[in-house]
Amino acid sequence: MRTAMIKLASIGFGTVGQSFTKILHDKKQMLKDRYDLETKLVAISDVMKGSVMDKDGLDMTELLRLVSETGKIDDYDGGVKGLDSVETINQCGADVMVEMAWTDLETGEPNITHMKEALNAGAHVITSNKGPIALAYKELVELAKKNGVQIRYECTVMSGTPVLSMAQENLTGHVINSVKGIVNGTTNYILTKMENGGSYDVALKEAQELGYAEAEPSADVDGWDAVGKTVIMANALMGASLKPGDVEREGITGITLNDIMEAKIQGKHIKLIAHAWREGDEVKAKVSPEMVDEDDPLASVKGTVNAITLTTDGLGDVTIIGRGAGGTETGHGILSDLLAIHRSRK
Amino acid sequence: MRTAMIKLASIGFGTVGQSFTKILHDKKQMLKDRYDLETKLVAISDVMKGSVMDKDGLDMTELLRLVSETGKIDDYDGGVKGLDSVETINQCGADVMVEMAWTDLETGEPNITHMKEALNAGAHVITSNKGPIALAYKELVELAKKNGVQIRYECTVMSGTPVLSMAQENLTGHVINSVKGIVNGTTNYILTKMENGGSYDVALKEAQELGYAEAEPSADVDGWDAVGKTVIMANALMGASLKPGDVEREGITGITLNDIMEAKIQGKHIKLIAHAWREGDEVKAKVSPEMVDEDDPLASVKGTVNAITLTTDGLGDVTIIGRGAGGTETGHGILSDLLAIHRSRK
Repeated sequence: MRTAMIKLASIGFGTVGQSFTKILHDKKQMLKDRYDLETKLVAISDVMKGSVMDKDGLDMTELLRLVSETGKIDDYDGGVKGLDSVETINQCGADVMVEMAWTDLETGEPNITHMKEALNAGAHVITSNKGPIALAYKELVELAKKNGVQIRYECTVMSGTPVLSMAQENLTGHVINSVKGIVNGTTNYILTKMENGGSYDVALKEAQELGYAEAEPSADVDGWDAVGKTVIMANALMGASLKPGDVEREGITGITLNDIMEAKIQGKHIKLIAHAWREGDEVKAKVSPEMVDEDDPLASVKGTVNAITLTTDGLGDVTIIGRGAGGTETGHGILSDLLAIHRSRK
Repeated sequence: MRTAMIKLASIGFGTVGQSFTKILHDKKQMLKDRYDLETKLVAISDVMKGSVMDKDGLDMTELLRLVSETGKIDDYDGGVKGLDSVETINQCGADVMVEMAWTDLETGEPNITHMKEALNAGAHVITSNKGPIALAYKELVELAKKNGVQIRYECTVMSGTPVLSMAQENLTGHVINSVKGIVNGTTNYILTKMENGGSYDVALKEAQELGYAEAEPSADVDGWDAVGKTVIMANALMGASLKPGDVEREGITGITLNDIMEAKIQGKHIKLIAHAWREGDEVKAKVSPEMVDEDDPLASVKGTVNAITLTTDGLGDVTIIGRGAGGTETGHGILSDLLAIHRSRK
């Protein structure tokens, strides 16, 4: 079989971008042997770390060394420097643009622009950013279709745990009537700690010290992160057209140790549950703390782990449990999307 | 987009064959609208119920009515009757042969022969039979490759719950270092009943009355069914070349109510665990009762439900929980395989 070469551009070179690059480098031989895939990184552009483009391929090891030692890639020897992200996308000639840049969650920018530019330039798009997919799913999918390319976004929900691809590719033929689960690791970590007797404040502080929660934790504890992921699942798996504002939302800041202990006495667990379900022809969605029975698979999901139960017409409930964050996890999810594009090109 | 027509032959028309036919019929419009797929059933051959072939397509509703009312399809009006399964496969001109016939688990026959004939005739093959895949995986996969067609076997483990496709298509890029889980619903039902205080004999009797266990229950309770599924996962997901005889095997007949209760006191559950793992360059496998911790997702798996935890290098543990048997469940798994073939033909 002929080995295919895929030219990649990475927009964003933070934790995820660096992990993905490291995986591509470390698994180079395996990708060639198992999947007949060779990759060439032709451009990286990061608003903080710099930008470099070389159509002959960049040296991944050198880029990782530079960013690790200097926090920048400006000192890379060779290539075209100083292009901004949009210029990079339009000039680099990549087959696949991987979008891992910082997002403004209110607007989904500059990522939506990056994706549109790439799709219009005939490149496949992979993203790990939930914002743009939550805000502009239909538009982006239609633009991809019009340009005869794919847009893939596995990592936007549960990082590399393949809930979206499984539902879209392996549960085909089913009607998905509900998606319900734990999609935010930070709040699940806090609630798990509280089950072990810590107060909300103590648990939050610990989550912050471990880097699971931000100094300003609202995106997690008020449920906004879960809302974005719920919208993506409702739209991508259930054919809905929801916007984040359509999702009823309650966070975990009102949950007391007393609530947790009362649930525990009843053999139940309080979890921040993301839920989208059909009601007639509509899809409704909410994010809120719910009591989960001991024998529900979601009850066993502790700490930062995530889980989703898909309720199908043909198979009843299918639950997938796995990690929902992390550089290596997300980097492997992007690789899985890349391999799906590679399969479809063969 | 042009709607594709796939010609199907069904070998075997028992519970699974009938369920699959009913799903094809009931979801006809959805398959056309969502996936641009039309199907034509050109032949059915069942050693007990009869055989009929019509290249213009058989009337699914009429076949389902006949088999339900008479237990046979001999009275079908039209088509060519009386061909045996191999003659049917070679004369029907199907694009896809679905293998759902009765299997001799010692030899994997006549199913292995059915599959070879179909692959050599240039047809894709879908099977729900674990025997042939456990016994002749490599040979069948190589024959499919040689003939430029696919062999798909999602339903051989966990029925329609897509553990195999998920691992092969959505966890690509990972090395799978272990597969571990509950793959036999009958034994899990018995062990769950015993946790609720029933003796082994009472629980087995109940499982038999409900149709979960056979009158001669050895295939389930002695672990043979789980061994077949373990071999399939080890070979298909971990690149092993195991035979059923390579798997260390212990069933649940030695488990007493006392064992179950002692485990319960320690906050543990006894489960029949199928496990394949890497040891150096080798893949080892065993099926045996094991104590499972309360916070292991496998502990929450009750009754006839199945679950598998895949341990990957990039993402750690991914667990999938879902039904592991049933006509509708298996029929939908076959449909999912059919849709995967359809996608690859487009």
